[in-house]
Amino acid sequence: MGLLTGSHQLDEADANNFGVDWVIHYQFEDTEMSQAIDEFRTLIQDLHEAKLQMQVRPGYGASLLVCIRVPRDYLGNMVYKSRVKDWLYGIIHEVPIGDEQTSIDAETAAEELRSVYHAVTWSKALGGAGITAQSGKWKNVTGTFPLHDPSANAELLRKWSRTLLLTAEDLDAIRALYGEKVAYYFAFIQCYSTFLIFPAVWGVFSWLYLGPYSITCASVNCLWCIVFVEYWKIRETDLSIRWNVKGVGALKVNRPQYVWDKEVRDSVTGEVVRVFPAHKQFLRQMLLLPFATVASIALGSLIVVTFAMEIFISEVYRGPFKEYLEFLPTVLFSLSLPWINNTLTRIATQLTDYENYRTQDQFDIAQTSKTFVMNFITSFLPTILTAFVYVPFGARLLPYLSVFYVGSFAKAGDTRRVHVDPSRLQQEVIYLSVTGQVLNFGEEVVLPYVKRVLVQKWRDYRQKYAMAAHGRRYSHRTDQLLNDVPDEASFLWRVRTEAEADEYNVHDDTLEMCVQYGYLALFGVSWPLVPLGFLANNWLELRGDFFKLSLECQRPPPIRADSIGPSLQGLEVLTWLGTLSTAAIVYLYRGEMADVRLSTLLLVLLTAEWAYLGLRFVVRTAVEKIATGSLRREAAKQYAVRKSYLDTISRSTSPKGRPRVRFQDRVKVYSTATDATTNTQEFLHPGQHESSSEERFWSCPTQDTADAGVRLIKALRAGDSIQPEKMKKGA
Amino acid sequence: MGLLTGSHQLDEADANNFGVDWVIHYQFEDTEMSQAIDEFRTLIQDLHEAKLQMQVRPGYGASLLVCIRVPRDYLGNMVYKSRVKDWLYGIIHEVPIGDEQTSIDAETAAEELRSVYHAVTWSKALGGAGITAQSGKWKNVTGTFPLHDPSANAELLRKWSRTLLLTAEDLDAIRALYGEKVAYYFAFIQCYSTFLIFPAVWGVFSWLYLGPYSITCASVNCLWCIVFVEYWKIRETDLSIRWNVKGVGALKVNRPQYVWDKEVRDSVTGEVVRVFPAHKQFLRQMLLLPFATVASIALGSLIVVTFAMEIFISEVYRGPFKEYLEFLPTVLFSLSLPWINNTLTRIATQLTDYENYRTQDQFDIAQTSKTFVMNFITSFLPTILTAFVYVPFGARLLPYLSVFYVGSFAKAGDTRRVHVDPSRLQQEVIYLSVTGQVLNFGEEVVLPYVKRVLVQKWRDYRQKYAMAAHGRRYSHRTDQLLNDVPDEASFLWRVRTEAEADEYNVHDDTLEMCVQYGYLALFGVSWPLVPLGFLANNWLELRGDFFKLSLECQRPPPIRADSIGPSLQGLEVLTWLGTLSTAAIVYLYRGEMADVRLSTLLLVLLTAEWAYLGLRFVVRTAVEKIATGSLRREAAKQYAVRKSYLDTISRSTSPKGRPRVRFQDRVKVYSTATDATTNTQEFLHPGQHESSSEERFWSCPTQDTADAGVRLIKALRAGDSIQPEKMKKGA
Repeated sequence: MGLLTGSHQLDEADANNFGVDWVIHYQFEDTEMSQAIDEFRTLIQDLHEAKLQMQVRPGYGASLLVCIRVPRDYLGNMVYKSRVKDWLYGIIHEVPIGDEQTSIDAETAAEELRSVYHAVTWSKALGGAGITAQSGKWKNVTGTFPLHDPSANAELLRKWSRTLLLTAEDLDAIRALYGEKVAYYFAFIQCYSTFLIFPAVWGVFSWLYLGPYSITCASVNCLWCIVFVEYWKIRETDLSIRWNVKGVGALKVNRPQYVWDKEVRDSVTGEVVRVFPAHKQFLRQMLLLPFATVASIALGSLIVVTFAMEIFISEVYRGPFKEYLEFLPTVLFSLSLPWINNTLTRIATQLTDYENYRTQDQFDIAQTSKTFVMNFITSFLPTILTAFVYVPFGARLLPYLSVFYVGSFAKAGDTRRVHVDPSRLQQEVIYLSVTGQVLNFGEEVVLPYVKRVLVQKWRDYRQKYAMAAHGRRYSHRTDQLLNDVPDEASFLWRVRTEAEADEYNVHDDTLEMCVQYGYLALFGVSWPLVPLGFLANNWLELRGDFFKLSLECQRPPPIRADSIGPSLQGLEVLTWLGTLSTAAIVYLYRGEMADVRLSTLLLVLLTAEWAYLGLRFVVRTAVEKIATGSLRREAAKQYAVRKSYLDTISRSTSPKGRPRVRFQDRVKVYSTATDATTNTQEFLHPGQHESSSEERFWSCPTQDTADAGVRLIKALRAGDSIQPEKMKKGA
Repeated sequence: MGLLTGSHQLDEADANNFGVDWVIHYQFEDTEMSQAIDEFRTLIQDLHEAKLQMQVRPGYGASLLVCIRVPRDYLGNMVYKSRVKDWLYGIIHEVPIGDEQTSIDAETAAEELRSVYHAVTWSKALGGAGITAQSGKWKNVTGTFPLHDPSANAELLRKWSRTLLLTAEDLDAIRALYGEKVAYYFAFIQCYSTFLIFPAVWGVFSWLYLGPYSITCASVNCLWCIVFVEYWKIRETDLSIRWNVKGVGALKVNRPQYVWDKEVRDSVTGEVVRVFPAHKQFLRQMLLLPFATVASIALGSLIVVTFAMEIFISEVYRGPFKEYLEFLPTVLFSLSLPWINNTLTRIATQLTDYENYRTQDQFDIAQTSKTFVMNFITSFLPTILTAFVYVPFGARLLPYLSVFYVGSFAKAGDTRRVHVDPSRLQQEVIYLSVTGQVLNFGEEVVLPYVKRVLVQKWRDYRQKYAMAAHGRRYSHRTDQLLNDVPDEASFLWRVRTEAEADEYNVHDDTLEMCVQYGYLALFGVSWPLVPLGFLANNWLELRGDFFKLSLECQRPPPIRADSIGPSLQGLEVLTWLGTLSTAAIVYLYRGEMADVRLSTLLLVLLTAEWAYLGLRFVVRTAVEKIATGSLRREAAKQYAVRKSYLDTISRSTSPKGRPRVRFQDRVKVYSTATDATTNTQEFLHPGQHESSSEERFWSCPTQDTADAGVRLIKALRAGDSIQPEKMKKGA
C-alpha cells in the first residue's frame, strides 16, 4: 500500500495545519490589475467583517491563497448557535443550554468545519462573509476549502489496508473528518459490499452446480436485490439517527440563486419565509419528461447506430480495411459522446436552475437525477441491445443493415451466412464485471495520481529554471512575501497542491456504485461469478475512493445529509428493471432461441412483475418490523428528554393555585376525591346546573350499591322461576 | 327526515344523562345466584377501588345496569395525565404545565370519555378497574359503554339532512362526540364522495359522447383512482395533525391477552417494556399466506360452482322445473356462505390471537386485514368470473358443464346452440351500483331499525301482561329498586335500550366503502354512470351510517387512531387491480371477442401495469409536493414551541460562568473576540500546544493582510509580463 500512503513520508511538521481553518484560492490571471486589487480588498474586508482572521500567501501562478482562522470562542459560539438551530428544527433532542455568548465544543472536526464553512459562505444577513466560489462577483475565487488532516487520513488508510470490512467506528471516523454526506457514500459501499458476499458465494455455487441461466439462481438474485434495497433504506434511517441528521434538509439555508415569489411571515414562528409555490415548481419539474425523452433519443440513437455499424463491420462486412474499420464505430462514438453529454448536461443545469430550488441540497438532488438518467442510458443501453435485440433477433435484423452498403462496400458483405453467437451477452457481462471495473479504477484513481505527480515534477523543474533565469528583485517586504519561510515551506506546498486539486463530488462515486449494482441486477444472471468480481473490485474501490478523497481532491466542506439522495430511487428502479430483465434473459437464453414465443415472454414478464411487487411488499414489511431498533431508541431518547424537561418545568413553575375545573355544561366541584373511601356525599357541593332528579339519582351512597345490586339479583333471579316468559324475552 | 330524528320527540328531560359517564351491563341469566352475587360484589369493589362512583338499576331480564360517574376533579386529573403522556410520546407539542394534582378541562367530550374508558378498562396496575366486557373473569359483563348525547346527535342529523357535503367543522363535531377512529371513517366517506363528483360528471359526459368501453374514459378513471388514493393519504396525515393524533399508536397500552417473552428495562427511559420479538411475530404473520390460500380456495370454489350451476341452468338446461331450479344455486350459496364465513372468521381470529399483538389497535388491524381478504373474494370474484371467464370464454367452456348431466337431466340441455351475451357484465355492474347499494342500505340501516322498534313493542306488551298476571311483592326496599322513579323512567328506558343495542364496528362501514370503491375501480369502465349511482348512494349512506351509529348502536368508546387502518392498503391494491382490470375489459369488450389474441392482451396488461407504476410515482410526488400545508404548519408549531421553551430555560438557568472552550488538540483561549476591529494580537494568549511557527504564521496583523495581498498581486502580475513561461504553467 505504498501507493496509498503517498510518496512523501509524513512527519509531525508535515501534518501541522498551522491553525488554518479554511483557505480561499483567489486567481487573477485574466483580470485587470486594478480590478484584481479592488476585488481582493473587498474580499479581505468581507472576511474581516465576518470576524475572521486571515493571512495571505502567494499561490502557484497569478493567484493568492487566503488562509482563514476563526477565533476559537467565536467558533464555539457558532457551534452552539448551530446546535440551537438543530434543536429548534427538531434534528436533535437534547436542548443546548446557554445564552447568546455561550461557546461549546464541537463534537467532531466536521461540525467545527461546518461552522467555519457557514462563516465563509453564508450571506452577510446571516452573519457570514458571503464568499461563494465561482459565482456572482466572486468568479475569480476559484476555490474555498478546508485543509486535509494528513495524519488522520494516513491512519485510516493504513488501518483499512489490513482489514476486510469497515466497522461502524470507521464510518464514524469518516463522518468526523468529512461530514455526513461523504460518510453516507462510504456507508453505502460498505453495506453493499457486505451484502455482495452472499451472491458471490451463491454465484460460485450456481456456477459449479446449477446450469447456466438457472431459474433458481435468477430468483435468488432478484430476492437478494429486493432485500438489499429495503435493508439499505432502514440502514439509512439508522445512520441518520446515529449521526443526528434525521430531517436535516429542513434547516438548510436558501441558495443565493433562489428566486422567491413572495415573502410570507409565518403566523406560528413569526419568521419571514421566502415562498416559491410548490405547484409552479412541480410544473417546471415536468420539463424533465421532454428532457429525458430528448436525452434518450440522442444517446439512444447514437448507441444504436454505433452498435449496428459495429455489428455490420465485424459480422457482415468482408471488404478491405476490415481490421481498421472495426474500430471506427467505437472511435466515432467516443468522439461524439463527450459533446452530446456536455450539451445535455448544460441543458440539464439550465433546467435545474429554472426549477428554482430553495436549498443547494435540493438543487444537487435534482441535478443528480438528471445525470442519472443520462448515465443509465449510456451504461445499460449497449448491453440491453445485445441481450434483447442483437442476440435474439440479430439473425433476422442483420439483413436490414444493408443500409450501410454504399459505394465500394456494396456486395462486400453477405448477410445470409451470419451466425449470431448467444454467448456474446456473457462475454460482454464478463468484460463489464472484470475488465471494465479494473479500467475504471485505473482511470479514476491511478491516472489522476500519475498525472498529478508528473505535473508537480514539471512545475518544480520549470520553477527552478525560471528562478535561475531571472534575478529580478522586488522591495524587501514583497520579497519576504514571495519567498516562503523555511518553517512554512512544506505546509505551503501542501496548501498550494490542495488549491490546485479537483473538487470531490460524492454523487459521482455513488452513481458509479449504482451503475455497478445495475449491471448485477440487470445482467448478473448471465454469468453467476459477476458478484465475485464486483466484491473484489469494491474492496479496492472503497480504499481507492478514500485515497482519491484524501490525497487527490480538496477536502469537501462537511455538508450534512440524511440519505444517499436520488441514488436510492435509482436503486429501486434498477431492482424493478432487474427483475424484468432477469426473467426475460432466463426465458430467452435458457432454451433454443427458435422456441421463443412472444406471448410466453409477455407472460413471463407479467409474472415477474407481480412476483416483484408481492415480494417487495413482504420484504419491506419484514425488514421494517425487524430492523427498527434505532427508531425505537430514537423514540425512547425523545421520551427521556421530554420527561426530564417536564420535571424541570413542573419544579420551576408549579402552579399551586386552586385546580381549574370547568366541564362542558355540567359543572361540579369536589373539594377532593382522592380519599374516596369516605362517604362521597360529604364532598358533594351541588353545582348550579345539577338538576334535583340528577341529585336524587346519585343520592344512594356508594357502599350501598353492592347491597342494592345483590337485592336486585335475588329479586330478578327469584322472578326468574316464577316469570319465565318475561325473563326469556328480556334476555 | 322523520325517520332519522327518531319516532320519539326529544325534550330537555329526554336528553338528560343524569351525569352518568359510563354504563356496565351485567347479565346473570346463566349463572348461579351465589356466583352472580360474588361476581357483582367484586365488580363493585373493583370500581370502587378505581375511585369511581356508581349506582345500580335493573336492566331488562336478568341483568343489572351499573351507572358510573367519575368525580370531576379526578377526571380532570386523568385528562391532565393523559395529556402529559401524549406529550412524552411526542403526540402533542405543547407541554401541559402542572403537577401530580393538576386537573384540567378536556377539549372535547370524547377526550373526557376516553379517560373514563381508561378508568373502567385499564388494568389495576395502571390505575383502572380492569373491567373488560366478555373476556376473562368478566364474561358476564355483556357490555360497557358511554351514553349517547341525544341532543347533539339530533342536531347533527338535522343539519346534514339539509346540506350536500360535510364541512371540516362537522368532522370535528363527530370527533368531539365519538373520537378519532369513527371520525376518520366519516372523513373518508366525505372525501371519497367529494372526489366522486368528478367521475360522476365525467361519466355522464362519456355516456353521452364517448362510445362504450372508451379508452379515454378508462384512462381518466384510472388516473382519478390514483389521485384519490394518493390524496387521501395526505388528507389522513392532515387530519392526524389537526386532531393531534399523529403517531398515537405508540402510546396504546398492552391488551390483556398479550403474552410477552421477557421484560426489558429500557436503558434510556428507565421504563419496563414487555417484549415479544418482532421476527417471531413476523413468522407467525406468515401464516396469513396459507390462510389466504385456504380462504380463496374455499370461497372461490363455492363461487365457481354456484356460478357454473347458475349458467348451466339458465343457459343450457331445458328440462322440467327450470323456473324453480334457476334459484337453486343462489339459495345453496346463500345457505353455505354464512357457515363458510363463520368457520373462516373463527380461524382468522385464532390466527390473530396467535400472532400476539401488543395493543388492541394492532389486533384489530390484523383481524380486519383478514376480513378484507375474505370480503374481497366474495364481493369481486363473481363479477371477475363474469368479466374475464364467462363472457370471453363462455361459449368454449359451456360444453364442459356436461358434468352436471346426471340422471333425468341427461340430454335435457344442448350446449351447442349457446349464445353468450357480452352485455351480461354491464347488467351485473348496473345491478351492483344501483339495486345492490339500495338493498344493502335497507339491510344495514332500515331493517335493524324496524326490528328494533318491533322488539321494543313486543317487550312492552309482554311486560304489561306479566305485571297484570302477577301481584307478587318483594320487600319495600327491593320494590323501590325494581320500580323506576317517574323522573328517571325515560332516562332508564334509554339506558336499557342502549344496553341491548349492538356494538358499532367502524371497520365494517369502512370495508363497505372500500368494496364500493373496488367496484368502481375494477368494473366502472363497463358502465360510465356507475360513479353517479355511487354518489347518490353515498349521500344517503353517510347519513344512514350516522343514524345507525347514534340511534341503533351503543356509543363506541372514543378510541383514537391516525388512519383508516388496513383499508388504506386495500385501496392501493384495488387501484392497482383496477388498472389491470380496466385495461383488460376495454381490450376484451371494445371489439369483437373473436379478434382477441392472448399476446396482445398480455401486452395491454403489461403496458397498463407500467403506466400505473409511472403515473403513481408522478401523482405521489405532485400531491406530496403541493398538499403539504399542514405538515409545514406542524413543523412550524413544533419550532415555535421549542423556541418558547428555549427562552424559558435560558432565562431560568443561564450559566453566566466563563465559556468553556476546548478544541480538539489545538487549544487556544481568547478573552473575547466579538470586537474584532482591534488588533487580534492583543487578545492572543498562546496556548500550550501552539507551536512557535504557527504563532509566527499568524503574526501579521489582519489589517495588513489586504496590503500584503495587493503587494503580491502587483509582484505576481508584474512577473506575469516578465515570466510568461512560469505563470502560464502555474495557471
